Amino acid sequence: MTEKFAAVEIIAAKRDHGSLSDAQIDWVIDAYVRGVVADEQMSALLMAILLNGMNNQEVARWTDAMLRSGERLSWTELDRPTVDKHSTGGVGDKITLPLAPLVAACGAAVPQLSGRGLGHTGGTLDKMESIPGWRASLSNAEMLSVLKQCGAVICAAGSGLAPADKKLYALRDVTATVEAIPLIASSIMSKKIAEGTSALVLDVKTGNGAFMSDPNRAKELATVMVALGKAAGVKTRALVTAMDQPLGLTAGNALEVRESIEVLQGGGPRDVVDLTLLLAREMLELAGVHGKDPERALHDGSAMDIWRKMVRAQGGDPDAPLPKAREVHHVLSKESGTISSMHALKVGVAAWRLGAGRSRQGEKVQSGAGVEIHKKPGEKIQAGEPLFTLHTDEPERFERALDSISDAVAISKDGSIAAHLPLVVDRIS
Amino acid sequence: MTEKFAAVEIIAAKRDHGSLSDAQIDWVIDAYVRGVVADEQMSALLMAILLNGMNNQEVARWTDAMLRSGERLSWTELDRPTVDKHSTGGVGDKITLPLAPLVAACGAAVPQLSGRGLGHTGGTLDKMESIPGWRASLSNAEMLSVLKQCGAVICAAGSGLAPADKKLYALRDVTATVEAIPLIASSIMSKKIAEGTSALVLDVKTGNGAFMSDPNRAKELATVMVALGKAAGVKTRALVTAMDQPLGLTAGNALEVRESIEVLQGGGPRDVVDLTLLLAREMLELAGVHGKDPERALHDGSAMDIWRKMVRAQGGDPDAPLPKAREVHHVLSKESGTISSMHALKVGVAAWRLGAGRSRQGEKVQSGAGVEIHKKPGEKIQAGEPLFTLHTDEPERFERALDSISDAVAISKDGSIAAHLPLVVDRIS
Repeated sequence: MTEKFAAVEIIAAKRDHGSLSDAQIDWVIDAYVRGVVADEQMSALLMAILLNGMNNQEVARWTDAMLRSGERLSWTELDRPTVDKHSTGGVGDKITLPLAPLVAACGAAVPQLSGRGLGHTGGTLDKMESIPGWRASLSNAEMLSVLKQCGAVICAAGSGLAPADKKLYALRDVTATVEAIPLIASSIMSKKIAEGTSALVLDVKTGNGAFMSDPNRAKELATVMVALGKAAGVKTRALVTAMDQPLGLTAGNALEVRESIEVLQGGGPRDVVDLTLLLAREMLELAGVHGKDPERALHDGSAMDIWRKMVRAQGGDPDAPLPKAREVHHVLSKESGTISSMHALKVGVAAWRLGAGRSRQGEKVQSGAGVEIHKKPGEKIQAGEPLFTLHTDEPERFERALDSISDAVAISKDGSIAAHLPLVVDRIS
Repeated sequence: MTEKFAAVEIIAAKRDHGSLSDAQIDWVIDAYVRGVVADEQMSALLMAILLNGMNNQEVARWTDAMLRSGERLSWTELDRPTVDKHSTGGVGDKITLPLAPLVAACGAAVPQLSGRGLGHTGGTLDKMESIPGWRASLSNAEMLSVLKQCGAVICAAGSGLAPADKKLYALRDVTATVEAIPLIASSIMSKKIAEGTSALVLDVKTGNGAFMSDPNRAKELATVMVALGKAAGVKTRALVTAMDQPLGLTAGNALEVRESIEVLQGGGPRDVVDLTLLLAREMLELAGVHGKDPERALHDGSAMDIWRKMVRAQGGDPDAPLPKAREVHHVLSKESGTISSMHALKVGVAAWRLGAGRSRQGEKVQSGAGVEIHKKPGEKIQAGEPLFTLHTDEPERFERALDSISDAVAISKDGSIAAHLPLVVDRIS
């Protein structure tokens, strides 16, 4: 077969600040999946894109080409509108767990295709997998069945969705080309559009514990993604939300499931409840479902009923005790005063080092590992009181976790709190 | 073995406009040769270098690390100073052939390690190999022996010299990362320094037929290379010379050998003779050899004697008839007037398409193929008179060669000549 283009000419065009045509983008993505464009050529192109950018048309076409590299799911059989949420990831971000059953309880269908964690941010599937018996991988038919039966499904995105992105993501990871907004946006949106949802709410995290620590870059990413979703016919909006301190009082897998269940029981930490409700309202509005109060659904047990059904439908036992780490270590406060700030990244790195996260794709994580937080910014503490409890199966991990977490907290004597981001930094619709 | 650095961190540093440390550069070159840094990582780094640049210290260290990846030759056994020339390549640039024996005839030793051609520019070894029996590959001992015996040797650079460059060059070729001044300069200079010459004259071509068509970029490249040579203890200077029209009256392999022999016989085209003498004088001055007149050495047969000895020492027969192409095609002028300009690149591409050059490393070239030029800019021509003669073994090649050469020439009615570059555009010492 004669190829329509030569990879080296496409790389040179982007290197020289040119725009790639639709035909060039279609070819380069397809030829990369076919192995005609080699990894070393694609990585040079990715670096040129990172440094020289892509215009809106290029990003849209790049996303579409990745989408077309695989299948696109469809939920036309369902009798209610679909809506999904995607978070760019943070420390203690367990929102998907209470949110999916909550939105289902209010009348929308939530096909929540999720991923695993890498580095200091946790993955929804890793958290769910700490529930005994629960399995992440479903066939398309099983997915539809769970969705029909429960109104929500949380499962692994199958390998048939945007396979080009899968290959590209692995390459970006080893070539320092992850952090380009066009590449991040197209990676997320190709998978989310392929998943077939008709509405999508994006939660773009910002602050030190987020991938996009700079709020302006986070807003830019959110804006690009909203435009991509709309261009593909998906009703899309985005919130840019705070990730300068951990969300809730836990960072880990089973630890976060426990906290999510508290939220579904009508309790749980204020910030987790607030963000869950905020996102639920955005999702319901976008899906065109009105008249249901999500706050009530947390208190009347209807969201919890769906959670239990959903866990059972995927082989999990919602009543089984959650795994616990074999060892704990309490970190006590050295000072008395008011917690002025808590550094999300340092807490996230500690949880990762305790075994809750992985350094490479494919690594196993510990279900019980992670960090429990006893006090959050604004709260008073006495010297000698516990600040954190660290959990792990391997006590030799404590030392490196302590290296990260020991200066995660600042304490003020005068009751003042350091400047921090508001829960919602921006909203793009 | 634990690695000192992670490739992804080095790529990220350059991506973010940082400078690489000596230790980072040493590691990344060495680890690339060892296969620890993968091709896709190196190509991302190369693109970041191309777009974000390297400072003088980085280029010097990069060159030195490539140099240290292999052996460095030494000519201390010789009783006269060594001096070499390197040209960045052009159309009809056969200067090395008469120059090496000429400079040897004047008293310096010329260890001329050369390469093969790629694309529209010819390679010295391809030209020499059209001489029946001549072989390019010599062992280090053979090289020294020819150099002692003749005063000059033209041969292939062994694979032991700067092997990192060899691997990098192949990668740059397929990833559109050839055209970065730091990478070009370090590639050329690592090989030239490894070759062990104590003095070096660079002929940096500029104009449409050159790799560096923009004179300012050519000057920049020359300046970087001169600095690299000096830093490595090699007396180095550079001429930036014209390549907006072909050099001499031939572009091809055997065709250029024939023309080179004319120069060694005291004849040959004016521009070839002028540039040969100019470079010979620079080389002799730099080597500290005085009192010999290179122009006389062309006329008294002393340079020719060395040429014949040198060809014989490598198995060639200087008296054997040179190969001729099986087919010729005459390109006649359609107009009468004065040749106003002749586009070097178009002539070079025609010669390449006739079979004198290769598209990929390792391809065979035709010894007899190429272009003969009958009139040069400034000369008068009548309609119907031959402008070019095309030579090839495969007549099906004529059509595509004609596509390139048919508008290579502009003819003026009023005897005027288009603006063109002076033979020497700049001199950096």
